[in-house]
Amino acid sequence: MAVYTEIAEDDLAAFLEGFDLGRATAFKGIAEGVSNSNYLLETDKGRFILTVYEPARSNEADLPYFLGLMDHLAHHGFPSAKPVADRRGATLGRIAGKPAAIVEFLPGLSVKKPTHDQRRSAGAGLAWLHQAAEGFPMRRANNLGQHYWTAQFAPLVGEADKLKPGLSKTIQNDLALLEKQWPSGLPFGPIHADFFPDNVFFNGPLFAAAIDFYFACDDFLAFDVAVALNAWCFEADGSFNLTAARAFLHGYESRRPLTAAEKDALPILAHGAAMRFFLTRLEDWGATPAGALVKPHDPLEYERKLAVHREGLHLFDGPA
Amino acid sequence: MAVYTEIAEDDLAAFLEGFDLGRATAFKGIAEGVSNSNYLLETDKGRFILTVYEPARSNEADLPYFLGLMDHLAHHGFPSAKPVADRRGATLGRIAGKPAAIVEFLPGLSVKKPTHDQRRSAGAGLAWLHQAAEGFPMRRANNLGQHYWTAQFAPLVGEADKLKPGLSKTIQNDLALLEKQWPSGLPFGPIHADFFPDNVFFNGPLFAAAIDFYFACDDFLAFDVAVALNAWCFEADGSFNLTAARAFLHGYESRRPLTAAEKDALPILAHGAAMRFFLTRLEDWGATPAGALVKPHDPLEYERKLAVHREGLHLFDGPA
Repeated sequence: MAVYTEIAEDDLAAFLEGFDLGRATAFKGIAEGVSNSNYLLETDKGRFILTVYEPARSNEADLPYFLGLMDHLAHHGFPSAKPVADRRGATLGRIAGKPAAIVEFLPGLSVKKPTHDQRRSAGAGLAWLHQAAEGFPMRRANNLGQHYWTAQFAPLVGEADKLKPGLSKTIQNDLALLEKQWPSGLPFGPIHADFFPDNVFFNGPLFAAAIDFYFACDDFLAFDVAVALNAWCFEADGSFNLTAARAFLHGYESRRPLTAAEKDALPILAHGAAMRFFLTRLEDWGATPAGALVKPHDPLEYERKLAVHREGLHLFDGPA
Repeated sequence: MAVYTEIAEDDLAAFLEGFDLGRATAFKGIAEGVSNSNYLLETDKGRFILTVYEPARSNEADLPYFLGLMDHLAHHGFPSAKPVADRRGATLGRIAGKPAAIVEFLPGLSVKKPTHDQRRSAGAGLAWLHQAAEGFPMRRANNLGQHYWTAQFAPLVGEADKLKPGLSKTIQNDLALLEKQWPSGLPFGPIHADFFPDNVFFNGPLFAAAIDFYFACDDFLAFDVAVALNAWCFEADGSFNLTAARAFLHGYESRRPLTAAEKDALPILAHGAAMRFFLTRLEDWGATPAGALVKPHDPLEYERKLAVHREGLHLFDGPA
């Protein structure tokens, strides 16, 4: 949610010369994205988003995967922003020395308080994304996946206990459990990996688009569902809204039914998905100086979600 | 340059119900404005900017003056964003409990490194603004004007000396000089008061629009010129570019010739205009916690401009 890079007019003009988009007629930094700077760009040819990747927060080697996936999805009918190729056919260029890309502007509104109808529609949108991504040939390991969590937590033990005395022991127990019970052999492929409400656009109650593919990677498709359940189905007080979860899952299954193994694995995947966001938030929390005007996300939000998953979820038993 | 308020979708929908603008189809926080939050708002009827005024940084009683001036300017042909009236005819409303207004979207690009042609065109734009503002019936005293500076500096003496040992004494000498030599009886009326490059849009080399009227007030028109000379005509190393100043002034005078008294007063007005920005920057500097991610503007930039003005400017002698 920040604009990090200031783009000078001559850098913008030089960058646009590589494209067949005409001259810039408007250019405004927008509060979207966390690891890059985004600008509304209007030219004689239409409206676009210019994204400048911050070297400190993005691995340049990953950018072709992200842009390639967005391009693949758009070419397979999924509403994600289509990267615009320059005159040489490349979607990744450089502006003011930093990697940058132009994508098409997508209309739509993200919601802060989704309705059950919107959850159902978002679930169907995520299944659509998984289907449209089939056949995408590039590969990117999930570097925030289960294999990395124990090593990621090791330097954060003190930070965890500072947040809440004794918390590090609980987290270590969680990590051991996740290691032991983590599934294998589930349907696998490109996932969004950050399918939160602020990365989904609606047109009224209907799913309109997904944005921000900068955590996309290859992992279990059901892990993507698990990340989304954590993001879309908890109340502000930390309680899990089962009706919300069923709405999301019904929407998902309306396009892509989950296998029995995926259904069985969802509770542990959701526990792990909560761990993934707890760990990065704990990292960011420790790295932010006291008194900073930009507050990182509260890791305790995900600590409360971990506590819910420790009790176990029963998503598919009982009446629908 | 920040989005302070997060607007929930139901608050936006409720606010838009008061207008004849249709439904929101896109909504994005943009990095424009310092004392308020700005959003790109697209509806079935067009593109707009929604501004939410932060109570901590704006005096609500001043908002009718700002919006009234923008409306007056737009009705008199000047390219400033026209406020959109709601169904009751009001331009100032409330969203999520905060004052808010919708204005028309203006195309154009602000520049970080203006050319002399752009300075000339910006000067003509400022004169146009002064002419179009004639007859605007509301009044707002300049609460950052010369009468207030001595009182404003009193609590900042220690801060000044912390910035640079002995600086407080120099500033007090400046303040005494400004008090003694401040002009009177110059042409007076509504001024923009913050006519910096980031508040001016161009279309190529041509002035396209002025934005951000949230410091507008009534003062000497030539004080507005003086603020602009400081903002448009200094090099990054602190030196004053006389050619740049002449370009700006020639542009201004192409629409509204300065009186002899205004020309005589410009050096002291420019000295005072540097003081006005030095003082607010010094205030903001002292009020910002160490380690904050959002850095305030450097007061030393304006301390260097004060030093230039102490030597005196000779704007109109010599060859044009």
